[in-house]
Amino acid sequence: MKVSVASLGGAGEIGMNMYIYESDRYAVIVDCGVKFAKSDDPGVDLIIPDFSYLETIKHKQILLLISHAHEDHIGAVSFLLQKYPDTITASGRYTYDIMIKRLKEYNIEPKKVFLDDNVSFEWGDFEIKPYPVSHSIHGTYGFRIRILNEFTFFHISDYKIDSAPVTCSPFPVKELINAGIEGVDCLLADSTNIMKAGYTGSEREVIKYIEEVFEKSNGRIFFTTFASNTERLQTVFNLAEKNNRKIVLEGSSLLRNVDTARKYGKLSFDDNILVSRKQMEKMEDNRLCFIATGSQGEAASVISKISESDYSNIKIRQGDTFIFSSRIIPGNEARIISVINNIYKQGGTVITSDDKHIHVSGHASRDDGRLLINILKPDYLVPIHGEIQHLLSHISLGIEQGIKEENSIFFLAGQKLIFENKKLINKEDIPAGKMYVDINMGEILDIDGLKNRKRLAINGVIMVVNTAGESNKIEDYHLTIKSVGFSLDNEYTLLLKDTLLGYNTLENKENVSFKDYAEINIKRFFKKRFSKKPVIEIINI
Amino acid sequence: MKVSVASLGGAGEIGMNMYIYESDRYAVIVDCGVKFAKSDDPGVDLIIPDFSYLETIKHKQILLLISHAHEDHIGAVSFLLQKYPDTITASGRYTYDIMIKRLKEYNIEPKKVFLDDNVSFEWGDFEIKPYPVSHSIHGTYGFRIRILNEFTFFHISDYKIDSAPVTCSPFPVKELINAGIEGVDCLLADSTNIMKAGYTGSEREVIKYIEEVFEKSNGRIFFTTFASNTERLQTVFNLAEKNNRKIVLEGSSLLRNVDTARKYGKLSFDDNILVSRKQMEKMEDNRLCFIATGSQGEAASVISKISESDYSNIKIRQGDTFIFSSRIIPGNEARIISVINNIYKQGGTVITSDDKHIHVSGHASRDDGRLLINILKPDYLVPIHGEIQHLLSHISLGIEQGIKEENSIFFLAGQKLIFENKKLINKEDIPAGKMYVDINMGEILDIDGLKNRKRLAINGVIMVVNTAGESNKIEDYHLTIKSVGFSLDNEYTLLLKDTLLGYNTLENKENVSFKDYAEINIKRFFKKRFSKKPVIEIINI
Repeated sequence: MKVSVASLGGAGEIGMNMYIYESDRYAVIVDCGVKFAKSDDPGVDLIIPDFSYLETIKHKQILLLISHAHEDHIGAVSFLLQKYPDTITASGRYTYDIMIKRLKEYNIEPKKVFLDDNVSFEWGDFEIKPYPVSHSIHGTYGFRIRILNEFTFFHISDYKIDSAPVTCSPFPVKELINAGIEGVDCLLADSTNIMKAGYTGSEREVIKYIEEVFEKSNGRIFFTTFASNTERLQTVFNLAEKNNRKIVLEGSSLLRNVDTARKYGKLSFDDNILVSRKQMEKMEDNRLCFIATGSQGEAASVISKISESDYSNIKIRQGDTFIFSSRIIPGNEARIISVINNIYKQGGTVITSDDKHIHVSGHASRDDGRLLINILKPDYLVPIHGEIQHLLSHISLGIEQGIKEENSIFFLAGQKLIFENKKLINKEDIPAGKMYVDINMGEILDIDGLKNRKRLAINGVIMVVNTAGESNKIEDYHLTIKSVGFSLDNEYTLLLKDTLLGYNTLENKENVSFKDYAEINIKRFFKKRFSKKPVIEIINI
Repeated sequence: MKVSVASLGGAGEIGMNMYIYESDRYAVIVDCGVKFAKSDDPGVDLIIPDFSYLETIKHKQILLLISHAHEDHIGAVSFLLQKYPDTITASGRYTYDIMIKRLKEYNIEPKKVFLDDNVSFEWGDFEIKPYPVSHSIHGTYGFRIRILNEFTFFHISDYKIDSAPVTCSPFPVKELINAGIEGVDCLLADSTNIMKAGYTGSEREVIKYIEEVFEKSNGRIFFTTFASNTERLQTVFNLAEKNNRKIVLEGSSLLRNVDTARKYGKLSFDDNILVSRKQMEKMEDNRLCFIATGSQGEAASVISKISESDYSNIKIRQGDTFIFSSRIIPGNEARIISVINNIYKQGGTVITSDDKHIHVSGHASRDDGRLLINILKPDYLVPIHGEIQHLLSHISLGIEQGIKEENSIFFLAGQKLIFENKKLINKEDIPAGKMYVDINMGEILDIDGLKNRKRLAINGVIMVVNTAGESNKIEDYHLTIKSVGFSLDNEYTLLLKDTLLGYNTLENKENVSFKDYAEINIKRFFKKRFSKKPVIEIINI
């Protein structure tokens, strides 16, 4: 029988992970993530996968399997479940607790099953075994996906080989070696950091560098990292206690993650280490550690508001040290730089991962990737989750590790790999793309909708109201011309009017509506004079 | 007498350099540069300084002094000369030759004087001496600006201390030591790289690393760097000759710079090393080096077009090596990454300065800055050209080098430093800001104009045509509602119409125009339902 894996996102890009494994009658979707909008995507809050391929497999029994609770793996689940509310969601409890908070906002109560570490379960002719792996958030799974005891995929999206995490369990080398022995036909694995030499290194590595900052600083410490990285937070709680500093926690996403991690015993601290913003004012600067959201300079985040003296009554002063325990996600450079500049302007100091090793990635580097291949010994390697250059670099890594050249597969979103008798027999194209979500307007745009928005900003709108009505002799006073987004001076407005009145002298008026005539000629008018393409609105009254 | 220096751009940001030195009756503007628009500045091609401060010193004799021919120092000259055509421009011949090509497009023939290395000249009560300094373009000057033998500024915007440039002359240590002995009251110096430890290093340093790539590569080489860096080009011409490769040159800005550099003997090669695109097809891959524009992934550039197989009939193939001998200017990450991905996708390989030391900056690092201060021994240090964090870091560097704390001045665009009897007596605010240039539309927007464009994209337009005319009883059929940039479904359109018809029942109709009523209520309508702010256009007919 034929089995297949397809991608609707994440293969050929960073973010928006969504993969679909199929047999004849069953399908398992692994992850359903978002990509964050670029600053030049106007009014767009999120980018989600185009789900239309799912229509073509509606007849199959579909399970949604979630690897971990990062937005690029769960962010689009609410949109999927709105469209396919009967889909059963399988995830770890920790992941579900984080995911459900978002789903509730959309009044979605998913049909769910929970995963247990290293315990396989069946979905039709699928047998799925979740392996807990190390990453930068708790409850991250890699999946062995076995179909009909005939073909075995191993899907490990985000991971690194961390042998000494702070609160998580170490990377399960022994379990994966057994999985390797039991046989893996095709490995799909994370490529985002695969071009980085060496090993990524353990979360434990950053402790001493953050500690150095704590020891050096005599003023207040403001700490920010990715809200979901509760291991990093555990480190800060421990250092605060050791250095006799109280902690203020601010930022809703941070509080959400802290609650969940605590509930699952993955973050532990004594309640009396916490103080409120009010109490904070009465304390000595060197007794305080403020933990908040904003490592990416997000406009709405606590740190960014503080940098603009716009957060309660907190004023930055000489001696304040801001620790950005994070990396810059490409695209956020400008925002982060301006936050940092504002902090310096008011006398604060900033320490980033450029200055000190105070951040370590959760993604596999080159040697993590090598080790994983040696452990699982797959026949096929299919790099996922990365830009094209990362996928290609991962392919050559696979070949270095002994994967056959023809078995190291270049695979992009919008493609489907079909296997039969343990061999890849075909690579097909499937419908795929990006959809752009404007949450306020409740609109989901395709690429053309997005282009129209940009066009509106760059080219503006030219409006013509024609009150001639039924009469097909248009008089000057029938026409009102208005421009939005650019100013059209009087001379040009008159010129344009003349052009439009040209309609009267048209031979075949009966075959050409004024609207069509106007649109064509306005287009010409602006192309010729300004090489611009304003949006044209003709209103006949 | 009082003397002063002010900034209209470049202090507190990277790019858009413009500084103004003044005595009572004379003024010298140093540089007049642009900043490149961010991808989210819709339809904006360039950002230039707001010149309005110049109106307040119109009565003074103004000289425009140009340090070097980089866009962030000359890019706004055409706009300045359109406004003040009588301004005399003083620059080196090399710089003028590059600048004039742009000015000609605007039909500007500037009144000009030429600078000669180390030869001082007078401008009213100013005595100005241009020192040739090393940077990443030929003909870069630092200026000693002496006013009335009373106060001596030293203005050195972009520089590094390069003791072994490829074709330029070494940094003039001896001349500057003499300048220091003759006395410098206030030094204004480049801060962009001041946070980087050590020395920036010589242009010569990159030769061996680029050579390694030439030796390793058996296929075609595609080389790109900043078009104005003709020293880097000399290195490539030399390596091509040594490795028996012919050169194809493509890209107008590149050709312009090559011509100028050659004309001044700053770039030398034998004509028969050049081959055309046609000849190229007949040649062996390993005999070819293609030099082109596009190091920043600019959409219109040769390399970016090649990466999209959209440049003549050049197709990327296995064995092609692309050398990006440049740094990523912040904001261009996304574009460059997509070019690199496209190259890999077609079988090419890419080498960037992340992989190898094939690029060196033209800006002073920390130790260059230290040495400069030791050489010139100024009483005052005023860091310029850098983000706030760079300026502050430069200030503390100055203090480390023995500048008095109160004499290390934090100075931003929009400020003016006034000196009297060799002492800083005041720091004033002056009008300054950014103007956004849309070249096609010939429009220059201020920040509000820019915000309106963004707002248009994000919020769209809602149009109401009201044909009730004089009658102040508005009937349903009088109103036509149209939305652009978002779709307003029927239900909401009717709801909005009802709201507008509410005007009829208004008590004080005579005091409230329909237009005002409609604007207020449409605003409320969209804020309440979509928390959106569409642009509102009411047309009464």
